[in-house]
Amino acid sequence: MSKINPISGFPEYLPADRIVEQHFLDVIREVFELHGFSSIETRSVEPIDRLSAQGEDTDKEIYAVSRLAAGQELDTTGSSREPRLGLHFDMTVPFARYVLENAGRLNFPFRRYQIQKAWRGERPQEGRYREFTQADIDVVDVGKLSPHFEAEIPLVIADVFSQLPIGEYLIQVNNRKIPEGFYLGIGLSDVARTLRIVDKLDKVGPAAVRTMLTAAGATDEQAGQCLALAEIRTPDTTFVDRVRQLGVGHATLDEGLAALTAVIEAGVATAPGKLVADLRIARGLDYYTGTVYETQLVGYESWGSFCSGGRYDALASDGRNAYPGVGISIGVSRLIGLLVGKGLVTASRSTPACVLIGLVSDDSRVRSSMIAKSLRDRGIACEVAPSAAKFGKQIRYAERRGIPYVWFPGDSQDALSGDVKDIRSGQQVTASASEWTPPAVDLKPSLHFSR
Amino acid sequence: MSKINPISGFPEYLPADRIVEQHFLDVIREVFELHGFSSIETRSVEPIDRLSAQGEDTDKEIYAVSRLAAGQELDTTGSSREPRLGLHFDMTVPFARYVLENAGRLNFPFRRYQIQKAWRGERPQEGRYREFTQADIDVVDVGKLSPHFEAEIPLVIADVFSQLPIGEYLIQVNNRKIPEGFYLGIGLSDVARTLRIVDKLDKVGPAAVRTMLTAAGATDEQAGQCLALAEIRTPDTTFVDRVRQLGVGHATLDEGLAALTAVIEAGVATAPGKLVADLRIARGLDYYTGTVYETQLVGYESWGSFCSGGRYDALASDGRNAYPGVGISIGVSRLIGLLVGKGLVTASRSTPACVLIGLVSDDSRVRSSMIAKSLRDRGIACEVAPSAAKFGKQIRYAERRGIPYVWFPGDSQDALSGDVKDIRSGQQVTASASEWTPPAVDLKPSLHFSR
Repeated sequence: MSKINPISGFPEYLPADRIVEQHFLDVIREVFELHGFSSIETRSVEPIDRLSAQGEDTDKEIYAVSRLAAGQELDTTGSSREPRLGLHFDMTVPFARYVLENAGRLNFPFRRYQIQKAWRGERPQEGRYREFTQADIDVVDVGKLSPHFEAEIPLVIADVFSQLPIGEYLIQVNNRKIPEGFYLGIGLSDVARTLRIVDKLDKVGPAAVRTMLTAAGATDEQAGQCLALAEIRTPDTTFVDRVRQLGVGHATLDEGLAALTAVIEAGVATAPGKLVADLRIARGLDYYTGTVYETQLVGYESWGSFCSGGRYDALASDGRNAYPGVGISIGVSRLIGLLVGKGLVTASRSTPACVLIGLVSDDSRVRSSMIAKSLRDRGIACEVAPSAAKFGKQIRYAERRGIPYVWFPGDSQDALSGDVKDIRSGQQVTASASEWTPPAVDLKPSLHFSR
Repeated sequence: MSKINPISGFPEYLPADRIVEQHFLDVIREVFELHGFSSIETRSVEPIDRLSAQGEDTDKEIYAVSRLAAGQELDTTGSSREPRLGLHFDMTVPFARYVLENAGRLNFPFRRYQIQKAWRGERPQEGRYREFTQADIDVVDVGKLSPHFEAEIPLVIADVFSQLPIGEYLIQVNNRKIPEGFYLGIGLSDVARTLRIVDKLDKVGPAAVRTMLTAAGATDEQAGQCLALAEIRTPDTTFVDRVRQLGVGHATLDEGLAALTAVIEAGVATAPGKLVADLRIARGLDYYTGTVYETQLVGYESWGSFCSGGRYDALASDGRNAYPGVGISIGVSRLIGLLVGKGLVTASRSTPACVLIGLVSDDSRVRSSMIAKSLRDRGIACEVAPSAAKFGKQIRYAERRGIPYVWFPGDSQDALSGDVKDIRSGQQVTASASEWTPPAVDLKPSLHFSR
């Protein structure tokens, strides 16, 4: 049998770190629901031809799935009528398929969130995994999508991040129509190619981008204009003046500037300091047609974006109707992997239990269990000591797990009475399990953030 | 591209049914945590040789996973040094591996829960899926596991099910040592084979079991004794007398009877009417060595068990230490699939939103957003109407989603004031978004159970 070893790119956590991850997932879900997004889950597999239709680049990242049954190694499902299957590599392709499949049974505009695992067969590296969790929100409508949703999406995300221990972050926003109109306005007609080159700015720097642009047919002046546009980054709507100063006019550019202004204005009003207009943001994927988003942790920009998305007009279409939408995806595994991996966020204990109920003797387990039940009935997580060891040993059992309180059952008539000790301070009080409540801060494991 | 079709065995839910599933998962998790179980998640893949070591039967059910990259169809990970991978078909095999891999960093006895998807390539049928969610708890110790955990596990489960809208259920408990000692006591030495035959009782009936037992070498009297034992089912500890009346003596039988007595006594004390001693329960898997559990919905026994498990002595071993444990697994997808599929459980709405904030005009979106923010700050989920349509149309938007309240912003100085209407009753009150609170029953979607 194969040795027991971690498998590269498939991270697993010990219980204390899993508590960090759970807390993040809980906050994300709670805020998504407060904003009226409905949960869905899609199956983990999609037909491979549907997955690979998203462009050649994704092809090599797909994990194919096939039944191991004898002689069927290359068959996907054991039935030749069924399509070959692969694990999904994001939530967007499955969501588009789900919308088309259920269009008649969904209410539009449809606000949904989806928190699930995805898989990519790419080379594992820091912050990039082969199995990872993403948390997506999208708003999808039939035919036409109101632009105000493009302003709403980053505000939901700001609401999430303001409640997570991640330090300072910045949501960078752009509108694809700005570079598109700008490039057309200066006479560069191959917009997609130009975008792809400028998108490399962070990685290769301005000099290399200039070289690539001129190699692609741009004049030195055009290349300079592209770089000047990409340098514009303002926390407010002054980006409009900065663009105007470059002296380029085009109807699409005007549309883009107006749309981005609306998004940034909403950000300034509701999440001041969290949104920034950043005209170099392009997003690699071709299907975005309007606003695009990326998110960075301040001071950890080299980690890249951990929350990205944008507006798309034609991701899903069934021939009769198009379903335009706007969405964003939090890379939960990337965020957790980095925060936990660097020790920036830690949990106060490795178990949900707030109290260990001591065991006086094996015969008195019923008494300890009654105490436990009484605490649980009031929402206080606890467990009974596994054996009637010396109390010192029982306290160490709690200490090793970070359980803050140990309950020593008494021997009075009242089975629920006893002494409860805060084993961090040593403080001990007599109490009844039907009434005692820990301080709110101790009820659940808490997270500690430090840079 | 392949047509958009459901894939057999990979269920997906519409938002309202997903709310049912989420509620079940929330209750399961909450109760597991109240009982001091720590969450872990294991990766979705394991080396295939580790998965298939669980017996030939599972072989054909494994989904192999391989990178789609050109020429690597049969390779698993793109690197020949890495083992071939498959999707896990339960949580037990991955958990055993996790315990061995992390033994030095875990605290024993280790109480963990694990709620994850698993995959089996078997033929889909009612209540059986190719992709499904399981919720497991286990307690694992090093070397020796205290028997009281065998009594605790079904009480945790009873605590879960008493808080779920599933109607009457029964946890059937047996101890493998009872049939083992009994069969040895009547002179049937091939215990495993006898167990496997008696295990078919529910499917084929007593006459067929008798025939199979005699065909396997049992005398007619021995076969009769096996059937008499399997018929014993008591809600209390009277099963002991019933077994004694059969006049069979064996040390292992005595051990089993004492152990099952302890489990049933704990059940009678803490979860009266929920546990039953049922001596026909054997569980197919060979690794159980003590208490075994199955669970049925009363009136829906033909659906089979939706929560099963038991005690095992040697699932995980690293040569130096064995890690005995006891655990149980809730088949969440089976339970939900049947309850939702038969329409027994429904959700009150298809969105978490409790309130729709009306929109007076496109210009007043800021005002509506402020109202929404004020409600959200106090934990009330809401969304702003997508457009400034006529109020009748906005009310229908809420109705279609089951959102119970619509908020009509006022035009006073106080931006947070307005009228809130219960669109079910038509009742309308003037209120401030900084104070108004819906009745607790409306705050979150609720579930309705009816048989």
